[in-house]
Amino acid sequence: MAKSKFEYVKQFETEDRLLPNCWIVVRIDGKGFHRFSEQHNYIKPNDDRALDLMSRAAEAIMEEFKDIVLAYGQSDEYSFVFKKNTNVYNRRASKLATNVVSLFASSFVYYWPRYFGTQMMQYPPAFDSRTVLYPSDKNLRDYLSWRQADCHINNLYNTCFWKLIHEKGLTPAESQERLKGTMSSDKNELLFKEFEINYNNLSAVHRKGTILLRAKNDQINGDLDLGLQLIPSGSSTARGGQSAKSQRVVSNLRAGKNSRPNIDRLHIDLIGDQFWTDFPEILDPPKR
Amino acid sequence: MAKSKFEYVKQFETEDRLLPNCWIVVRIDGKGFHRFSEQHNYIKPNDDRALDLMSRAAEAIMEEFKDIVLAYGQSDEYSFVFKKNTNVYNRRASKLATNVVSLFASSFVYYWPRYFGTQMMQYPPAFDSRTVLYPSDKNLRDYLSWRQADCHINNLYNTCFWKLIHEKGLTPAESQERLKGTMSSDKNELLFKEFEINYNNLSAVHRKGTILLRAKNDQINGDLDLGLQLIPSGSSTARGGQSAKSQRVVSNLRAGKNSRPNIDRLHIDLIGDQFWTDFPEILDPPKR
Amino acid sequence: MAKSKFEYVKQFETEDRLLPNCWIVVRIDGKGFHRFSEQHNYIKPNDDRALDLMSRAAEAIMEEFKDIVLAYGQSDEYSFVFKKNTNVYNRRASKLATNVVSLFASSFVYYWPRYFGTQMMQYPPAFDSRTVLYPSDKNLRDYLSWRQADCHINNLYNTCFWKLIHEKGLTPAESQERLKGTMSSDKNELLFKEFEINYNNLSAVHRKGTILLRAKNDQINGDLDLGLQLIPSGSSTARGGQSAKSQRVVSNLRAGKNSRPNIDRLHIDLIGDQFWTDFPEILDPPKR
Amino acid sequence: MAKSKFEYVKQFETEDRLLPNCWIVVRIDGKGFHRFSEQHNYIKPNDDRALDLMSRAAEAIMEEFKDIVLAYGQSDEYSFVFKKNTNVYNRRASKLATNVVSLFASSFVYYWPRYFGTQMMQYPPAFDSRTVLYPSDKNLRDYLSWRQADCHINNLYNTCFWKLIHEKGLTPAESQERLKGTMSSDKNELLFKEFEINYNNLSAVHRKGTILLRAKNDQINGDLDLGLQLIPSGSSTARGGQSAKSQRVVSNLRAGKNSRPNIDRLHIDLIGDQFWTDFPEILDPPKR
Repeated sequence: MAKSKFEYVKQFETEDRLLPNCWIVVRIDGKGFHRFSEQHNYIKPNDDRALDLMSRAAEAIMEEFKDIVLAYGQSDEYSFVFKKNTNVYNRRASKLATNVVSLFASSFVYYWPRYFGTQMMQYPPAFDSRTVLYPSDKNLRDYLSWRQADCHINNLYNTCFWKLIHEKGLTPAESQERLKGTMSSDKNELLFKEFEINYNNLSAVHRKGTILLRAKNDQINGDLDLGLQLIPSGSSTARGGQSAKSQRVVSNLRAGKNSRPNIDRLHIDLIGDQFWTDFPEILDPPKR
Repeated sequence: MAKSKFEYVKQFETEDRLLPNCWIVVRIDGKGFHRFSEQHNYIKPNDDRALDLMSRAAEAIMEEFKDIVLAYGQSDEYSFVFKKNTNVYNRRASKLATNVVSLFASSFVYYWPRYFGTQMMQYPPAFDSRTVLYPSDKNLRDYLSWRQADCHINNLYNTCFWKLIHEKGLTPAESQERLKGTMSSDKNELLFKEFEINYNNLSAVHRKGTILLRAKNDQINGDLDLGLQLIPSGSSTARGGQSAKSQRVVSNLRAGKNSRPNIDRLHIDLIGDQFWTDFPEILDPPKR
Repeated sequence: MAKSKFEYVKQFETEDRLLPNCWIVVRIDGKGFHRFSEQHNYIKPNDDRALDLMSRAAEAIMEEFKDIVLAYGQSDEYSFVFKKNTNVYNRRASKLATNVVSLFASSFVYYWPRYFGTQMMQYPPAFDSRTVLYPSDKNLRDYLSWRQADCHINNLYNTCFWKLIHEKGLTPAESQERLKGTMSSDKNELLFKEFEINYNNLSAVHRKGTILLRAKNDQINGDLDLGLQLIPSGSSTARGGQSAKSQRVVSNLRAGKNSRPNIDRLHIDLIGDQFWTDFPEILDPPKR
Repeated sequence: MAKSKFEYVKQFETEDRLLPNCWIVVRIDGKGFHRFSEQHNYIKPNDDRALDLMSRAAEAIMEEFKDIVLAYGQSDEYSFVFKKNTNVYNRRASKLATNVVSLFASSFVYYWPRYFGTQMMQYPPAFDSRTVLYPSDKNLRDYLSWRQADCHINNLYNTCFWKLIHEKGLTPAESQERLKGTMSSDKNELLFKEFEINYNNLSAVHRKGTILLRAKNDQINGDLDLGLQLIPSGSSTARGGQSAKSQRVVSNLRAGKNSRPNIDRLHIDLIGDQFWTDFPEILDPPKR
């Protein structure tokens, strides 16, 4: 059988090597997760089982791709930051985007029972994935800030939206109407006045999303045994006097038995400078 | 929070719309499936559970993407052919490649238990995916012929390789050495002389791979009840007097309770003209 | 001097190989030719010196690139059609676009004096250039039809516009206002009633633009000497009983001493089927 | 005439917007200039008329594209550096590459008589052009260093090659054989011992190529009248105690009546830090 006769078709495949010396971000997004979350009775506005499952799948990605220096997730999306000079898959865009997203999707199904127990998955979900280049550190920080600002804006809205439905008995349409045109300050006030909720005291996971970082060394884990675990998870405030490094410990505790020993989950502000001062190795990875 | 201040980063995303009026093929490939198949005790040279699972996942893709006119799979790969003028995802290459591969990967894990029963999956697998354009019908046919020729060449080799190991007690290295430099005719003769096997009588699934087509009408399924099911699966020969349409029925029976009523599995030659004469609607889809 | 230390920068260059088996069209367009034509006192609505110069430059392209099967020009633009399977510059898009456009631009300046005599060029002009792929013969024909339809629409408008100015004394603004909202039929009627002009009798160069084809053989040039030159240029009608092949001869005569012996200039309809019937070798070039 | 029926073909044009926040380099290269230089009796190893003409054409580019911050040329090539955040042509790669190269080519022909006098151009030349992105300042500097190192290596070789031919009577083949395998130090020694030439005293134009910068202010031109013109062009050494700013003046003088008042020609080292210290505005252009 003349194999060679057909092999010319390989010439139709195109090269898609990404520009060197740029940060590569692979962002995955759940496809049709509005419906998926309804079909699987996600708790509103935030379902911690679903968020933990997303982070567990993201950790599988970080364990597979050693050149990822940080991941950030919120809602049904996750962004993976590859170091500027990674050469994984020879920087081919489609290889990166598809290997990441397929492993994410298979992990999402694989780990589902750990988080949803006996509640069966009704159908397998899809995710899309894209590769984006950011030439400068500032561009990368602004990208991550964009996603975290998006998390904040959506969570503030959703918190109000569902409070009005669950506790005031509004219909979704009425709740939407009530919030139309409101500013952030209006929503904060609404929560405080009508529900006696200080938004800043709500769970950092929901307000800040989840940052995944590689644990740097055993020293930190060693600290863990010396008493830092006494810090209650709920009390963490990203902007308080407490530094991010101690919070990192808290995160590890919270994730419980399912956490990965080598990856930390943080739920802190990454828009300001403090985060980048605390973790300089993200932008300046040690040379290998 | 100044969301707009960060949104400029969206400008770094690139457009990747595919050229109109070309066949779009999305091909997915298992990543590291040599190891995956060993870890999961795949039967060698072909594991029907694994092949059926691949086809079941591929059917999930065809059910989701109505513009796919044909899929072809073998080993740990599957190719999906979108009609020339599809406008799904506005023909964006990364959208197509990632949505297909993530749904394939999540389906692979989701349907695993149906085919592997109580044998647990050890870890979630990854797949890569690429989008390739073929401008002419001939290019598309040559692409599919390339994959089916590849299936044949690998299956002939693997059949010999494992026969020598399983039945002659050779080590893998010895078996490889024995086959080095052999032509197809040598391997056919080896099978016949040493194992009394006529290669052409082996399972068409393994020799030809699997073609997925949308079932055209109930008439064919109606025929099913009238006796065609008497054709034994093993006896089908793609190039024999039997036409592809009757073979299609055989395929449907074989797939059993897990088959999709609206999608047929065929294991026949697509390199010659007969297949394309039998299914003219693939290259000339009816206008909608 | 450590040359190698810097050579890594070559990795930042990207591959841009065009999909095989598609027609490649390189279209060049004058940049800022509204101003250029004013500065050089182009005759309105059509300056034959400028049109001839454009065609002369286009002929230089066809002489350099043997894989061009047809060129079509009108106004300050020219399109060059490379045969489907050309491998010139390994089908690299930027190589094709830039070599064509730079040779066009240098030829435009180089041949200027032949057409504009003692009128000096005031400043060197720029052109832009793009590479477009057309997968099917129909797509290619539609592309060329699009350009010829554009030629017709603009020429009809410009003919009216300048007649009103030159012969009725309207200002440009008044002329524009007069033509606002008119259909083709209105403009034809305007020309006929007010200027006793039958649009179809105007110069075919202006109405149809210029098609460049390689002369096939001496036979045709031989015919030339036998009397066909008696056909007056002005009377040629592409859709009349006269075939395109005889018109080709007329074109050759018209171009005069500056014409290239191996390239014919035609000013005929290419939207209908006749042209493609007369010149089947364009879409089906002889194998080499 | 149904124009709209054909306009769908515009959809086959592709978007090629370049990644934001990267330096854009457009490099043009003479096509077949080995032959062109022979046909036009270029003086070997360097023809100052040709080099000046190249620089004059490059100045036309800088005058047209205000976002070019620096150009560097040597032999038959020129590189144009657009500022990182330029939005010219909406950063479309093909627009940039083709407009630059076509204006360069037309200018080359247009200004030819100024430099070659009564020697006629035999045929119009072509150039190719490519667009390359450099994300960091270091990448850009390394790119320019790569080109200047290339200038040095070629000039050293060519100087030896032609000296051996012109003064020792070697054939080209013999000269090539004589230089085979020699290091830079060998060539320097050859020039010194056999021709009493100190390579570093040769013309800076030939050793360093030409840097084009926008003149910053009249102050510098004012200095010109105060005596700096006494510095002999040949004695300039980029790495000597003399600063680049004074050398810039020298360059202006050399270019003579054809120089552009607003653009300076420099022939100095840009590989070391001195150049970038002297002209900080290149990497940090003033905000507009």
